[in-house]
Amino acid sequence: MSWSTRTVFYVSDSTGITAQTLGHSLMSQFETVETQAVVVSFVTGVEQAEACVARITTAAESSEHRPLVFSTLVDKDLAAIIDRANALHMDLFRSFLTPLEQELGMKSTHYVGRSHATVDTTQYIRRMDAVNYTLQHDDGQSHQHLDHAEVILVGVSRSGKTPTSLYLAMHYGIYAANYPLIPEDFERDALPSELAKHTDRLVGLTIDADRLASIRSERRPNSRYAALASCRAETIAAERLMARHAIPWLDSTAKSIEELSAEIVQLRALDAPLI
Amino acid sequence: MSWSTRTVFYVSDSTGITAQTLGHSLMSQFETVETQAVVVSFVTGVEQAEACVARITTAAESSEHRPLVFSTLVDKDLAAIIDRANALHMDLFRSFLTPLEQELGMKSTHYVGRSHATVDTTQYIRRMDAVNYTLQHDDGQSHQHLDHAEVILVGVSRSGKTPTSLYLAMHYGIYAANYPLIPEDFERDALPSELAKHTDRLVGLTIDADRLASIRSERRPNSRYAALASCRAETIAAERLMARHAIPWLDSTAKSIEELSAEIVQLRALDAPLI
Repeated sequence: MSWSTRTVFYVSDSTGITAQTLGHSLMSQFETVETQAVVVSFVTGVEQAEACVARITTAAESSEHRPLVFSTLVDKDLAAIIDRANALHMDLFRSFLTPLEQELGMKSTHYVGRSHATVDTTQYIRRMDAVNYTLQHDDGQSHQHLDHAEVILVGVSRSGKTPTSLYLAMHYGIYAANYPLIPEDFERDALPSELAKHTDRLVGLTIDADRLASIRSERRPNSRYAALASCRAETIAAERLMARHAIPWLDSTAKSIEELSAEIVQLRALDAPLI
Repeated sequence: MSWSTRTVFYVSDSTGITAQTLGHSLMSQFETVETQAVVVSFVTGVEQAEACVARITTAAESSEHRPLVFSTLVDKDLAAIIDRANALHMDLFRSFLTPLEQELGMKSTHYVGRSHATVDTTQYIRRMDAVNYTLQHDDGQSHQHLDHAEVILVGVSRSGKTPTSLYLAMHYGIYAANYPLIPEDFERDALPSELAKHTDRLVGLTIDADRLASIRSERRPNSRYAALASCRAETIAAERLMARHAIPWLDSTAKSIEELSAEIVQLRALDAPLI
């Protein structure tokens, strides 16, 4: 860690996920700033908050810049302790709970650590079911119950189908299957027969051939599978097949699984909020 | 939707994940408020912002309460359009970008849609590698490279090992294997031999026997596997085995995979920020 590094603390009475999510979004707007993240989660008592202030102080002393702190602490007394640290403290709850209380005409419950609790059991069971479904229908493993899928991702091997399906299941509760397009399909010049009756729920993923070759090379170096010529031929054939069947597709080359998932939700009008 | 329902809009120039994450955290503090979520993502132009205002207006007219809007719009002009809607507009970026700009002594880049972009390729590859590793080491499938695991979750069947491992891989980039504890282990009264040399990276999951029986019953109704007596015997035996080997464990009964994951990161001092 250099003298100019900014330490960014994420302080929470719960998992710290909310603080980190908003903090990452904001910090991505300052990409030249060199940062070092420190997560301090499950801060629920005065002693823990004071220990956290001590860590912030130490960090402040080992850099030319004072640290940044993103916090989600429901207990205002704990947030006030963090205020004492030599840092820019961005208290995400304080900024919005007061206007919300006014608007809703009630006090917040001030339950600590609620944000990622399994509040809604129905929703949570749905989510777990979706993850199980997706695991069972990964990579064309099972044709059984393919009609239960809300979306079926198709694409060449290593185009990003598996992680994107898992994200859709885990975070949107969507039953997402995925099915590979393989050289045999391109030779036959037809979609796998199991998919023909489900074209309305297919979404394609494609990927830049150079990137694909580099990903495949890590798995099987110097194979025909990883050769740039194969990757190029497969991606071209896959795109042609998808175009012919009017399957909408996304390019996964420069997109995160979050972005791909949100675009798929929008594309197929699945109308699913994040769980 | 009833007349008293509050519509909560999540408006974003990107995936909407940040807006939803903070919005959910805040709204979980007002659990008696009946809400309906509407996600409007990839709002990058004036026309889209105006269409969004129209949707908010319609929602305002069909409820006794004006809607709530959580937004993450980097472009201030688009945020200003949303301001015109009849709603309580909580602009997450505006609230924090100005103090951050002052603190950092620079203007934010105002790049739209950056928050979940694949900014850091190294980190992203790591994350994908972790997901692949976890899938290959799910449910004790492979003993190969078990020494690469940073954490190995153990527990009885359906105690939550798989989704928690996937969350650890996907969101922390942690190589998380998982391994079932089965009746044969309890009869032998010993850990599976493959795990014996890895006790320092084991974390147990346990679960309330009633809850386990209900989860297992959905899969295999009226089976011995799902019977309450089996569930009780297995969870007791698993906890005894974990205690004897000094394996720390968590109870998954009332915890989300987010909470379990954050606790595991803390428990094993994996020191991993969220990716």
